[in-house]
Amino acid sequence: MSNNYIEQGDNPDLTELRKKASFNTEELSIFLAGSKSKLDKKRRIHKFVESKKELNDAKPLSFMTRSELMENEQRKKMYMMEYASEIVDISSLEDMHYYNDAVHNQDGHPFSLHGGMFIPCIEAQADDEQREIWLKKANNYEINGTYAQTEMGHGTNLRKLETTATFDEEKDEFIIHTPTITATKWWPGNLGKNANVCIVAAQTWIKGKCYGTNNFIVQLRDFETHEPLPGITVGDIGPKFGYQQNDNGFCKFDNVRIPRRNMLMKHAKVDRKGNFTKPAHDKISYSAMLYVRAVIINVLGEGLGKAATIAIRYSAIRRQGELDDPKNEVRVLEYTTQQYRLFPQIARSIAFMKLGENISKLYFNLLKDLHSGNTSYMTDLHELLCGVKAVVTHEVSLGIEQCRMSCGGHGFSQASGFPYLYGAFVCACTYEGENMVMLLQCAGGIMKSVQKVVTNKTNELSSIFKYLGEKEKKKSTISGDKVTIEEYIECLEVNARKQIFDGFKQFNECIINGMNKKKAINECAIPLIKAARRHTKLFIGKSFAESVTKLAPGSLKNVLMKILELYLSYEIMESPSGTILEGFLDDLQISIISKRIKILLSELKNDAVSIVDSYDFTDRELNSVLGRRDGHVYSNLLKWAQESELNKTNVLPSHHKYMKKLFDTRKGIYNSKL
Amino acid sequence: MSNNYIEQGDNPDLTELRKKASFNTEELSIFLAGSKSKLDKKRRIHKFVESKKELNDAKPLSFMTRSELMENEQRKKMYMMEYASEIVDISSLEDMHYYNDAVHNQDGHPFSLHGGMFIPCIEAQADDEQREIWLKKANNYEINGTYAQTEMGHGTNLRKLETTATFDEEKDEFIIHTPTITATKWWPGNLGKNANVCIVAAQTWIKGKCYGTNNFIVQLRDFETHEPLPGITVGDIGPKFGYQQNDNGFCKFDNVRIPRRNMLMKHAKVDRKGNFTKPAHDKISYSAMLYVRAVIINVLGEGLGKAATIAIRYSAIRRQGELDDPKNEVRVLEYTTQQYRLFPQIARSIAFMKLGENISKLYFNLLKDLHSGNTSYMTDLHELLCGVKAVVTHEVSLGIEQCRMSCGGHGFSQASGFPYLYGAFVCACTYEGENMVMLLQCAGGIMKSVQKVVTNKTNELSSIFKYLGEKEKKKSTISGDKVTIEEYIECLEVNARKQIFDGFKQFNECIINGMNKKKAINECAIPLIKAARRHTKLFIGKSFAESVTKLAPGSLKNVLMKILELYLSYEIMESPSGTILEGFLDDLQISIISKRIKILLSELKNDAVSIVDSYDFTDRELNSVLGRRDGHVYSNLLKWAQESELNKTNVLPSHHKYMKKLFDTRKGIYNSKL
Repeated sequence: MSNNYIEQGDNPDLTELRKKASFNTEELSIFLAGSKSKLDKKRRIHKFVESKKELNDAKPLSFMTRSELMENEQRKKMYMMEYASEIVDISSLEDMHYYNDAVHNQDGHPFSLHGGMFIPCIEAQADDEQREIWLKKANNYEINGTYAQTEMGHGTNLRKLETTATFDEEKDEFIIHTPTITATKWWPGNLGKNANVCIVAAQTWIKGKCYGTNNFIVQLRDFETHEPLPGITVGDIGPKFGYQQNDNGFCKFDNVRIPRRNMLMKHAKVDRKGNFTKPAHDKISYSAMLYVRAVIINVLGEGLGKAATIAIRYSAIRRQGELDDPKNEVRVLEYTTQQYRLFPQIARSIAFMKLGENISKLYFNLLKDLHSGNTSYMTDLHELLCGVKAVVTHEVSLGIEQCRMSCGGHGFSQASGFPYLYGAFVCACTYEGENMVMLLQCAGGIMKSVQKVVTNKTNELSSIFKYLGEKEKKKSTISGDKVTIEEYIECLEVNARKQIFDGFKQFNECIINGMNKKKAINECAIPLIKAARRHTKLFIGKSFAESVTKLAPGSLKNVLMKILELYLSYEIMESPSGTILEGFLDDLQISIISKRIKILLSELKNDAVSIVDSYDFTDRELNSVLGRRDGHVYSNLLKWAQESELNKTNVLPSHHKYMKKLFDTRKGIYNSKL
Repeated sequence: MSNNYIEQGDNPDLTELRKKASFNTEELSIFLAGSKSKLDKKRRIHKFVESKKELNDAKPLSFMTRSELMENEQRKKMYMMEYASEIVDISSLEDMHYYNDAVHNQDGHPFSLHGGMFIPCIEAQADDEQREIWLKKANNYEINGTYAQTEMGHGTNLRKLETTATFDEEKDEFIIHTPTITATKWWPGNLGKNANVCIVAAQTWIKGKCYGTNNFIVQLRDFETHEPLPGITVGDIGPKFGYQQNDNGFCKFDNVRIPRRNMLMKHAKVDRKGNFTKPAHDKISYSAMLYVRAVIINVLGEGLGKAATIAIRYSAIRRQGELDDPKNEVRVLEYTTQQYRLFPQIARSIAFMKLGENISKLYFNLLKDLHSGNTSYMTDLHELLCGVKAVVTHEVSLGIEQCRMSCGGHGFSQASGFPYLYGAFVCACTYEGENMVMLLQCAGGIMKSVQKVVTNKTNELSSIFKYLGEKEKKKSTISGDKVTIEEYIECLEVNARKQIFDGFKQFNECIINGMNKKKAINECAIPLIKAARRHTKLFIGKSFAESVTKLAPGSLKNVLMKILELYLSYEIMESPSGTILEGFLDDLQISIISKRIKILLSELKNDAVSIVDSYDFTDRELNSVLGRRDGHVYSNLLKWAQESELNKTNVLPSHHKYMKKLFDTRKGIYNSKL
């Protein structure tokens, strides 16, 4: 039972709590990282990065303009690649993930989309010859690629993208063109200033016929001068809510010609004569998007973990108000409200990190299948990930804000690191599929499974839908003062099942009344969205329960079971009302769960700091005066504030220009003797 | 039935919907503004401001540094005062509120705290002689004052503020001093750069004895040079999540001497010999805070209205996906999910605006009482406003984010105006009383009322608590396909009553077991917070129902009743689960409410644009490319983006410094023929 993060000279309020750890932080760090080797690798890379001045920020990011931010990341990227061979295997995805994270943190860098979208897209959609050319260059960082799907006027509805790729048989070329303002490519990361190559999604026109959307590799900028090539207008779309370091861009094409073979042709193909061959599976081009969705679950779990780390550490040193002794103020961590705000965030963060691991495994299985031509799991995984993406991004965003607000005023300062975290993560609710659309896609899949149940084909249900075919339970078995994991999961199941069948009933009535599927889904969107959320939450709950009960070492069982139980009980008590749990849980059973929550919060109180320590985030990663490992918050807040551009002079130059004039005009009766 | 906001050349998608208005927008504008004269005044002032170049921003705020933002607001402020006599009565609070709003919008300006805190505080706490001196100068803008209570180490717990004011009898002076780092005044608006006078909350020491916190007027800067006076270290606290135009500041006092009579002495007094006289009411110094809380309810309702305006207008012109006709994309406003996200925000916004009106009336009554020495309503109003403040700020913040996310990717761009709105309003969850603390204060008041019920003193209950003493209803009367306003209110009552008595039961047990009140509240914080929320929501629901049923003109009844019903039904269906409504509503009744929601959303669809038009926000106020009255979004997005500092050159200067070097190093096998 020990906390490895204690150092001499730390704020004693933190040390005192750390000494109370009921488990070994090193063991939990290994569990959270996935393995000892991953944890070691991550630490080794972070230590290396911290030791190199060129890989570190010249000053806190909050005090840089966007141009300075861009230059800062470009500088770090260049030196990062220069040093790469000393510390990582550049061809290893995992190595580069850790290395990028260590150097650039989560807010984007000049090659964000290159590694996150461009390379995976080529991996999945280029044929062997194309891979040979593009993948080599891409992996070797000789080019900087991005992926441009979204247009100003269209994001979600791929089929209505307006950019065209028209085949010129004579010259064996495609002509990429932006026919309207709304067709302007808009939002792709790194498109504005950094990328020189781009995968462009465009409507494929051959001999006057449209064959739908395909992906084309288009060179955007001269490889020597970096000037945009003729016919290409490209730029930055301006400041955003967050993500200022990324040059999300726009791009217009004025009849830009590319070789026919720049269309990615592993699945759909166009031959020399303009014959179009359809892909075997019509959703094949989604695979790059699937990968991103799988990866962001992990990253999102970590993001919430960072927020929780900052808030918990600060809550351990912030003292405010008295409980027992009117003279001694207590840590704000002593307040039930603070625990109730924060501890469920720890639980969700860990649940999502473990979920990410599980989904990554599913994805890599899918990829193997794809390469061997098998696409049958695609739809299932796609629909599941839609729900997961929506639920996780939403809860992480809300969670980061709860963590921020739990730090009072100081949470609102950029010194806290929260505004940056929120900006970097809340956008995930929108990008890679807007959450409402995601939930309805997930619901669409659920409706297909319910159809199997009502037509007695329960044997065709995939494992995550099996519960829909099971006999409905009328009454929970919860009693006494303990609740089992199975009893919690049962609540989530009853909850999901009820909402799903309720949604199906309404949906089915619409279908029977002759509505098309799209209209029926829109008509029943409110219950369907709730159904998708509850189904997804059940899936996440089961996944987390499995990770804890099957994978955690015995010595961590005690603390992890508390976290798991808090996760499950919180999900049940925070469900929105309406048709929920009525009858299945009676008042007494609900109060048993409430009491369990209160007990779990108390029991986790002395472990909270040690749990968040175990995420093993460095101070550099947290980027927060409030979340410092050593707990010396106040003196560093004062220090941080000195950097404000407004503090360069005691009196702002503009004061004399305007305010002084104002006072002089108004003055008349002032008597300085006052 | 007409919409006054139609102009030729507008986006036809907006015009088409505007023509469908089922009511007269001018009538709704008057209702929302409070009266025709207020609406006229607001319009007159806004038109004047728009006509003066010096009162307008030189470029969009998103493209300014903080120094530029400060200068921009200072310039506008100076000219605003220069022009003041042409358009407003400078001594009228209402005139100045509209004028400030028109010139500076909601994100702060050099005199934000002067008008919002400094003057009200002097109004309430200065004695006649002090008013004569300070109020005159303040009202005449000869000085710029702010209010400094929060310190780095203490916000909520006033009694533990560390700044001291020590009486020096010999010189008849107080010595203001900052004894520790954590005692540094931190956060007060305008303290950093603009204010030259400050009301400082400090512990009052006289002859070795501490008399608690009182307020002192301290001059911070020289009135000629604006340099900080000797002993005063003052500056900006750095960038925040939002509110960048405001110089929230820090200040340290090194034994700064002020005359004894600079202590505000309407209530507490210190005479020449150092005799301290206690105020009649110990919460007397909270009154300035009360005023701010009353005012922000209004402003918050408007803030959510701005977000709703932007999102609804954009949803009317954004087309995405097909429902009936596979060739024609529909407005995203057609989607139930979009309606369910947005229309409740309209309803809440209007409910809060009307609530603000009602509470302002209560406050001004209180002020009259205070001046005549009567402080009996103080506690009641204080506790009610605590709950209202927490619920409204929280729901406005969530609502602005829902509006933003409903606009997809474009909502994340600063061009949307949402990031600015969110930053300007979410801080209200934290400032002027952190929301969790507020809810517990409100719950404390509720517990006192329940005590009256259980001790059979229901006749002592104030009107808002009367329902607690009424006989509990066992079953809702909802049936058929309509629900009355009374039936909805009854649901909210049942809901609140159940949670309140549940909370009281647990709270009372703790008290009986010998816990002190503070500990008991902490022990039962989870149910108590829920109780406070539900009680407050009931109060808001009743207030809104009264505004609509009693105050709205007959011609608006139709549309306002729909908005009111949506407000109430949404509150019921979105309540968190747990002990809610079980038994009182059965499955059938819940489904009746669900169906009403779906029907209301459909019925409001064609009125939505006209409703938000009626807020009468100018484009300049909305500050949003997406929310433009004319609906010409896309071409203006492109135009806006050109202003990005990254677009000054096609190739960033830093590219050659770093990225080019990187490519050159990595290059080896690249063949430009590709």
